[in-house]
Amino acid sequence: MNERFQRGAARQAELGGPGGIRGRVYGQLADIAPDLHRFAVEFAYGDIHSRPGLDAGRRELVIIGALIALGDTRPQLEAHLGSALNAGVTPGEIVEAVLQALPYAGFPRVLSAMTVARGVLAARDLLPLTDSIAQ
Amino acid sequence: MNERFQRGAARQAELGGPGGIRGRVYGQLADIAPDLHRFAVEFAYGDIHSRPGLDAGRRELVIIGALIALGDTRPQLEAHLGSALNAGVTPGEIVEAVLQALPYAGFPRVLSAMTVARGVLAARDLLPLTDSIAQ
Amino acid sequence: MNERFQRGAARQAELGGPGGIRGRVYGQLADIAPDLHRFAVEFAYGDIHSRPGLDAGRRELVIIGALIALGDTRPQLEAHLGSALNAGVTPGEIVEAVLQALPYAGFPRVLSAMTVARGVLAARDLLPLTDSIAQ
Amino acid sequence: MNERFQRGAARQAELGGPGGIRGRVYGQLADIAPDLHRFAVEFAYGDIHSRPGLDAGRRELVIIGALIALGDTRPQLEAHLGSALNAGVTPGEIVEAVLQALPYAGFPRVLSAMTVARGVLAARDLLPLTDSIAQ
Amino acid sequence: MNERFQRGAARQAELGGPGGIRGRVYGQLADIAPDLHRFAVEFAYGDIHSRPGLDAGRRELVIIGALIALGDTRPQLEAHLGSALNAGVTPGEIVEAVLQALPYAGFPRVLSAMTVARGVLAARDLLPLTDSIAQ
Amino acid sequence: MNERFQRGAARQAELGGPGGIRGRVYGQLADIAPDLHRFAVEFAYGDIHSRPGLDAGRRELVIIGALIALGDTRPQLEAHLGSALNAGVTPGEIVEAVLQALPYAGFPRVLSAMTVARGVLAARDLLPLTDSIAQ
Repeated sequence: MNERFQRGAARQAELGGPGGIRGRVYGQLADIAPDLHRFAVEFAYGDIHSRPGLDAGRRELVIIGALIALGDTRPQLEAHLGSALNAGVTPGEIVEAVLQALPYAGFPRVLSAMTVARGVLAARDLLPLTDSIAQ
Repeated sequence: MNERFQRGAARQAELGGPGGIRGRVYGQLADIAPDLHRFAVEFAYGDIHSRPGLDAGRRELVIIGALIALGDTRPQLEAHLGSALNAGVTPGEIVEAVLQALPYAGFPRVLSAMTVARGVLAARDLLPLTDSIAQ
Repeated sequence: MNERFQRGAARQAELGGPGGIRGRVYGQLADIAPDLHRFAVEFAYGDIHSRPGLDAGRRELVIIGALIALGDTRPQLEAHLGSALNAGVTPGEIVEAVLQALPYAGFPRVLSAMTVARGVLAARDLLPLTDSIAQ
Repeated sequence: MNERFQRGAARQAELGGPGGIRGRVYGQLADIAPDLHRFAVEFAYGDIHSRPGLDAGRRELVIIGALIALGDTRPQLEAHLGSALNAGVTPGEIVEAVLQALPYAGFPRVLSAMTVARGVLAARDLLPLTDSIAQ
Repeated sequence: MNERFQRGAARQAELGGPGGIRGRVYGQLADIAPDLHRFAVEFAYGDIHSRPGLDAGRRELVIIGALIALGDTRPQLEAHLGSALNAGVTPGEIVEAVLQALPYAGFPRVLSAMTVARGVLAARDLLPLTDSIAQ
Repeated sequence: MNERFQRGAARQAELGGPGGIRGRVYGQLADIAPDLHRFAVEFAYGDIHSRPGLDAGRRELVIIGALIALGDTRPQLEAHLGSALNAGVTPGEIVEAVLQALPYAGFPRVLSAMTVARGVLAARDLLPLTDSIAQ
């Protein structure tokens, strides 16, 4: 367990906990590509996400924008919408962030993403929204 | 000039000013598709960007994430990196936001985007960075 | 109900009816982002689709080309293939339109889209085709 | 010269002429990949574009939708906007077709495409538009 | 059965056999677009894949890279990972090839692809890997 | 200079040399995001490209497939086509690899990539090809 892994694992723990979606997805790949999990922890979280200079919630907003635009990223979007909530982004801000991608990524991408957001918020009993104009 | 256009134009003015990149790009299309400019002002800015519930700087972070992932969006990225600065995102936060897309959108997209960011920051005499660990 | 919404809802009704796929998908988001449905009706249908200068069927051909190329747009493709039929595009023309994307978007995208088209045509008892050389 | 090549070359000639953009682009590749040109003629035009069941103008609308959504397709978009005009799509219909991609492919893609359309129409002295509400 | 079809069908048979994924997917489209299957055999396999100058396994590596980057290509990825194995690419090389896309296409695409690779290798009793450092 | 950086820099040196395209592109970003260069060396080359289990030339074929499909990756494609040559992929194999992406990524992407390949091969006086059926 090197320093990068430790830093990344600590960041992941803050953002989602070991029982989260990330753990399940990578756990299924332990017998084929364990290094893929290690790279995610060390690089995506240890090198990038835990850098100073931008807080965790704002980092998740960038990631959410990128995942919506990429398309075909449902499991990652589910994980990162949860992480954004854990980092203090409010449910209403989540909805606004997804809507903000609309002029750039178009209706199909945003409609899919909002459906994922609905599932994430419903699973945490955060619907209907109470903090947003979105209603 | 309807209410949506007025609200959108006001938001655009806050984010970039009438002499900015947006004005030039859309101005060139005035003789072929003036409604495209109107839709950008009314819909992208009047309906979406000016919604309450998420501040302008955070909206720009979502947009930056989406534009990096889409690719082939250099003029828009240039405009929105400038808007992010105008909305109070610091130069160091801009650099971190671009780096944060790396694990999701990959090196080619981030390398292109960082080159655009360099141009935007240099044009405002904001390089070298003074507020970021990125150095 | 503003004029844009009324115009968009009328266009949607012509293209698919209130019991169609669009209604179901957006209906599920009523408790999280009702404005997303409103934006689709007002902007996508009221501002754009109902413009004069290009008939509804030809508009659907542009949309079908875009959705195939984007990928990860199955529900939208299903809705718009149905709208194309409702706008007078024949089943054989639908098949030809999907095939026409092949040299530009490649086999994976077109194969997925043709599978969706098969479902849409079969649900309306329009298979086997009777108007096309495609057979 | 097999039958597929002859059919494809005839279709290309209808759509753009031997001195067009297509000829130049592929001509530059004659010393590295002459078969790429042959595949374009035989497959894209001889097998697909010249099929019965959908007229040439409607085929170009599908292609334009796909090219806008793909991004990074400026030379192809330039060629196909010209082909659409040659196939009888009016300048106003061209503008409407590009706008119709907006809710699905987003502002950056449509803004780039409209800039290309402007160049194609201006080169043929077709601006300002005289047949469209777009003005 | 022309020469191109025969050559393509022979190549497909080498790569996956008539009972494979390809047969099933295209078989379902026989009543709507039989020519799509013919184009895949004649063009993708008869014209391109069976060209001399690059061996079948290396061709599959290019295809795997392209499919991962495209996204939303699960059935094709499943077919081509199987083809790669049939062409002599080892299970460990498959895993390495998927990992090699990581810096360019990002974690979401590679995570999806590795999940598909896991299924393909498990179905052939090739897990755990015995030939790779990936463990 | 940690071990990952050293390993990555050694791999990069094998593939392109310090005066290559990579050095120039990243060098221009030294005053804004020096860590981006470090991440490329450490992660893309030190962690991934230098792994055992797949030779350098085959790794470049996966990368070339991914870059073609992504689009808007001209500088990277230029660098990696050069790396492929340096890793022993022959000019004829390069041309075949680019053509092999055609059925999956479509003509626009492959046409752009072949134009880049032409430039790379011409700069090394490798045209016309002498080892390939492509002629």
